[in-house]
Order: sequence, then structure tokens, then C-alpha cells
Amino acid sequence: MNYFSSDFKLGILGGGQLGKMLLADTRKFDIQTYILDPSEEAPSQFGATKFFRGSLMDFDTVYQFGKMVNLLTIEIENVNLDALDKLEAEGLPVYPSPKTLRLIQNKGRQKDFYVQNNIPTSPHQRFVDLNDLRKSLEKDELEMPFVWKCAQFGYDGNGVKIVRSTLDLVNLPEVECIAEQMVPFKNELAVIVARSVSGEVKTYPVVEMEFHPEANQVEYVICPARIDEKVAKKATEIALKVSEAFTHVGLLAVEMFQTEDDEILVNEVAPRPHNSGHYSIEASYTSQFENHLRAILDLPLGNTNSKVAGIMVNLVGEEGFSGQVIYENIEKIMAIDGVTPHIYGKRETRPFRKMGHVTIVNENMDEARKIAEKVKNSIRVIS
Amino acid sequence: MNYFSSDFKLGILGGGQLGKMLLADTRKFDIQTYILDPSEEAPSQFGATKFFRGSLMDFDTVYQFGKMVNLLTIEIENVNLDALDKLEAEGLPVYPSPKTLRLIQNKGRQKDFYVQNNIPTSPHQRFVDLNDLRKSLEKDELEMPFVWKCAQFGYDGNGVKIVRSTLDLVNLPEVECIAEQMVPFKNELAVIVARSVSGEVKTYPVVEMEFHPEANQVEYVICPARIDEKVAKKATEIALKVSEAFTHVGLLAVEMFQTEDDEILVNEVAPRPHNSGHYSIEASYTSQFENHLRAILDLPLGNTNSKVAGIMVNLVGEEGFSGQVIYENIEKIMAIDGVTPHIYGKRETRPFRKMGHVTIVNENMDEARKIAEKVKNSIRVIS
Repeated sequence: MNYFSSDFKLGILGGGQLGKMLLADTRKFDIQTYILDPSEEAPSQFGATKFFRGSLMDFDTVYQFGKMVNLLTIEIENVNLDALDKLEAEGLPVYPSPKTLRLIQNKGRQKDFYVQNNIPTSPHQRFVDLNDLRKSLEKDELEMPFVWKCAQFGYDGNGVKIVRSTLDLVNLPEVECIAEQMVPFKNELAVIVARSVSGEVKTYPVVEMEFHPEANQVEYVICPARIDEKVAKKATEIALKVSEAFTHVGLLAVEMFQTEDDEILVNEVAPRPHNSGHYSIEASYTSQFENHLRAILDLPLGNTNSKVAGIMVNLVGEEGFSGQVIYENIEKIMAIDGVTPHIYGKRETRPFRKMGHVTIVNENMDEARKIAEKVKNSIRVIS
Repeated sequence: MNYFSSDFKLGILGGGQLGKMLLADTRKFDIQTYILDPSEEAPSQFGATKFFRGSLMDFDTVYQFGKMVNLLTIEIENVNLDALDKLEAEGLPVYPSPKTLRLIQNKGRQKDFYVQNNIPTSPHQRFVDLNDLRKSLEKDELEMPFVWKCAQFGYDGNGVKIVRSTLDLVNLPEVECIAEQMVPFKNELAVIVARSVSGEVKTYPVVEMEFHPEANQVEYVICPARIDEKVAKKATEIALKVSEAFTHVGLLAVEMFQTEDDEILVNEVAPRPHNSGHYSIEASYTSQFENHLRAILDLPLGNTNSKVAGIMVNLVGEEGFSGQVIYENIEKIMAIDGVTPHIYGKRETRPFRKMGHVTIVNENMDEARKIAEKVKNSIRVIS
């Protein structure tokens, strides 16, 4: 298949920052790209061959969009899967497949899938709604504390709550949910697996999320993770097993816990480029975005090794600021060697809105970590 | 000044591959960009905020375009300078300045400028036209062999001819020209200097052009150049002197000869991102394109050091092929670690048309050089 400067059209469902960064590589290769997104201010509106506004959840919109392209991928999981099923049945390659997306969209089904495939994960119970969960508590079939998760449409910590007493249930929505056993862990890790249509597989190095010591918030994504080699090997093997189990095509970001006794438990997966792989644009021989493209187009996968150590800091809207965004002190951080800001292109900041990220690369990991802290303490997303 | 996700608009005159690669960084920083180019198939038509079609040589078109933006830069030198003069006089920042562009556009004036500023360059004579040159030959004021260069609008070897006898003059155009003394050299080198509005200056490492042993064609641009450190230091100092002399803002690519006795002679300059710096996208901490942006926006310059060794191979249209382009064996070269093709987005190939380039990066220069040869011998731009 000839993708380069040809009539071939890649369709991408979703036009957020992940799409925007993917477009950098479709432009590099001059691959025609159509984007569908509901927002007229979508970060991916520039750089695509054509940008269409429309709902990702509407059957007809997604179906019609799919009929215009030669291959369909996503940059967000919450899309109309019935439309994808029909398109796939009619012969359109859809990567990741709607079957995989259906398994992943629902956290209950996702967890069941791990259990069925002997993939280590924390014990869980599924409930059709909150009432169902309450009954289980009353019957002593569920023990507190546990982690409540809404089964669908949660993201970035939304739809997750630690339940220590029935008081914690009070404001939870009456939706399908799961309860996960709380497992003490010492590290949150992630491995991104690239798997092509032909089944070629490569893994990125294990990354580590470093949390703020007080606030329970990821501050840094660090590549490579500062962990024992044995643990890294185990995490990589498990990530590969997950990718194989899904016979996944494209990128699969596998988020995992490293328990106190060095067991690895799969937390959840994202079937697309992922926040934990943003460092790869500057640090890796081949970025996660380029490898997602290579995988779904069945091109050879690129080298996933790193040239240098990489750390990523998210840029989220500061509390107390809403409106036209200002990146305070961005000039200051740009003056530091190996610091690259990525601005997603959202005009309006809101508290905790993901507005961009900063990558810090350095030959030396300790130095990178020091600079990352300096960056974190300098730049502010305000209005 | 707030450039990021703001109303600030950067204007770029020219929409070719240099503009296209520059757009990757304006997108990364979410800086609004307007592009002017005469071609409806310009590689930069995607990724800009707005793309305008129009002549770069027409006063009114360039002037009107300039009135819509907050800062103006170029990705090609041949633009209407009177319009830039007027825009600059009216307060618009124009980088590089029309004064510099006027000096550079004319090879005679450019050479005179080097002589006036004690910048080493091969001896030259200026002629108003070919007839003027012929008279000089007749009066024995000019000796053969020499290098004839048309004074304006030459590029990529067009408008250059070695004259060994008067027979070589037969088909030359009757335009303003210069004659340069032929100086035997052992290397062609280049240094890219980034200089910001405030005068911050950084240089990229010296690169080396490796020529085909028989055909007189650059095959590889190699960073860093495999030359003596003293020579590299001298080349860098001279490049800095050239940038200072022009009080240049933005990138200045300084092409130089290393003579048989290790003298450095300036050949010519390009006041913009340059083919000799394309390797920087993959190999450097900060690409030449990002540093051009940083320089003209008066942001701190990024680290110009390399993470790894880099080699660039141009992809030009194969002789004997015209029409819808096919990149034969592109999958083959993409299977090699550290190989990244850049496809410029020209649908039609023609013999010797610049269609793209391939970057090879590796920790080890010898290994990179071997891979570069494999790449060169595999990929073909055909139709």
C-alpha cells in the first residue's frame, strides 16, 4: 500500500491533543488525514487534510465519516462502537478493533478479561448499579475499604473513589460500577506496547509515575523507571501478554501497580497514544505517535529505545483561574537546556484542565529530575 | 509578548518544505501562523492557521499579507523586498531584515560584503552582464578557469558553471554575474548560527557534505563533521563573525570550503532553516526550525548540541520518472533502527526535484554512515 503523498486517507476519531501530536507525524510522512471531533476549537483542526465537526457518539455521523476514509483509528475511546462494527463488517480496517474497544470501554468487562486471560490484576467485583453494590455490602459480600470505579466514561481520576465507609457512597452516581480491592503499592508503572497489523511487536521502556508526596497527584512521568531490572522485565512481559490477549493493533498503554512485594498488577489500559508516552517525542528514537501510525499502517515498527533520559510534566490549569490562557514563566523554562513545552491549543484555561505538557531530556537522569522540579515550580497555567 | 494560544500571528513568506517543517513547531507551541505561497499544492498548506495563495514577488500581495500579521519571516529569499522595507518602516518586525535579504539576494553584493567585513572568501569579480565579463577576459583582467555564478535567483547549483574556456560561455544567460577564483578544497562544511532579536547567539555543530566520488553531487550531510577540532573551531568562529556582521536575526546557514591547507572560505549563506540542518530534527536537543522560531520571537534559544550522530540523505526525483510519486522501498528503510523519512508533500515527481529527505541517527557515527549508504542504495523516488 502506498500511503505517502497518495490518495490514501486515514480517519481519526477525536481531535484532541493526542490527535494533534499524531498529525505531526502524518504531516512528516504526508499522509492524508481526516479528523472528526465535536468541538470547533479542537486542537487537531490544523494539520489535518480535512476537519469535520460532529458527534463521536452518533451512529450516522461516525458511519458516514468512516465511509470517506481508507483506514480508521481513534484518539479517544468513547466513540460509537456500533458504527465501527458496521464499518469493519463492510471491510474497513478499524484499529484498534471495536471488539477491543468494547472490552476496554467497560471497566468491569476489562477486569473480567484480565481474569480470564490469567493477567494479574487486583481482585474486583462488578455491580449493575450503586444499589446492587449497597446490597452486597449489606450481605457482607463486599468489604471496606475498596476502590469504587464507575464502569464507563471515567477518565483521569474522574469516576474513581476510595470507599472507607458508607458515607463515601452518598454522592456517587447510580451507574454500573466495580469495586476493587485496595492493594498497597510502591510504584505506578506503565509500558506502551506497539503491535502492527502483521503482529510485529515492540515495547517502550517501563516508565514510572512519581507522585506528589502529599497531594495524590502524578507529578512526573519518568523514563526509564528507576526500578529493579527484574521488576522492569516482569512489567514488560505482562504488558506484552495483555497486548497479545487483545490481539491489539496500534499502541496499547498498560498501566500497572508494583506492589510492596514486587508483584505487578495491571490497573487499566488505553488502546492509543498515552500521556505516559509523551516523553518519547524528544527522548525516543521513534515517538509513540509515529509508532502508532506505523503499527496501524502495517509499516515496520520504529526503534523504541531512548536516546536520552526523559521526564514529562503535565501542564494543567491552575486552581482559581478561568479564561484566556497565559503560560506564566514559559520563557524562563525554555531557557533551560533540554526543556520543550508542548501547548495543546486550548484557548481557555480551567482548573485542572490539561493544557499542555513539558518534556525534559538529559543524558543524565538525576540532572533531568532536578530540572523537572525546577520546571514544575516555575511555570503556571493561569488567565 | 504572549505567543502561545494567543491572538499573535506569525506570517511566513513561502510555503515549501522549510515552511512545512517550521509549522511542526508552531503547532507544538500553538502559535497562529499565516502562510503565503503561489502554489495551490504548497507543502505548507496544512498546519497553518490560514494559507493564502499569491505571488511572493508582487509588492501589493506581500504588503497586504504583511498587514495581517504581527511578525514576518521567510522560508525563501526571493520575495518582494520593497514591500518588506515598507512594512518594516511602518513598524512590523521583519526577520531576517530586508536589508540583509537585499545583501544576500545578490551574490555580488554578498561577496563584497564579506570582503568589506574581513570575512575570508575566495577572490571574486563582479560583472553587470556576460558581455562585461567577456570584455574583462579579452583585456586579460580575468583568468580562466573560474566559477561563473549568476548574481540573482540561482539556487541548488542552478546558475553556477565552471568556465575553463570561452566555449563554456556560449549558453550562459546575459545576466548580472560574478566570477570566482577556483580554490581547491577538501571539504564543504556548514555551520548554522541562531541569533535572537536580543542578540543571544548559538551555533550548531559543524556539518560536512560528503560528495559522490564520481558525480559532483552531495550525498550525505554528516553531523558532526569528521574533521580536526581546530578546523571545526575556526569554521564556527567565522560563521559567528558572518552572523554578527549581518546583525542577523533568525537562522543563518553559513556554507564554507575547507581548503587543502585548512583555510576556511565562506561560500555563501542562507538566512533561514537550511538543508544542512535537517538532521537536527532527530539528532539535536533543539531542531533548527524550533530555534528559528525562538530567535525571531526573542525567546531563549534552545540547546544546539546533538543527542546522537546524525546523517541526512536527500530524496530527489530519479532521472527518467515524472508523475505521481512512489517512494520505492520506503518500508525497507523504515525497518532499520534510527531511520526517519520526511516526505515533503509534492504529489508529482520530476528528475532531481527535492521530494523529501531521510535522517539516520545512531549513537555511533560509523554505524550511522553505514546505514546511510544502505538507505541511499535502497530507496528510489519514481513514478
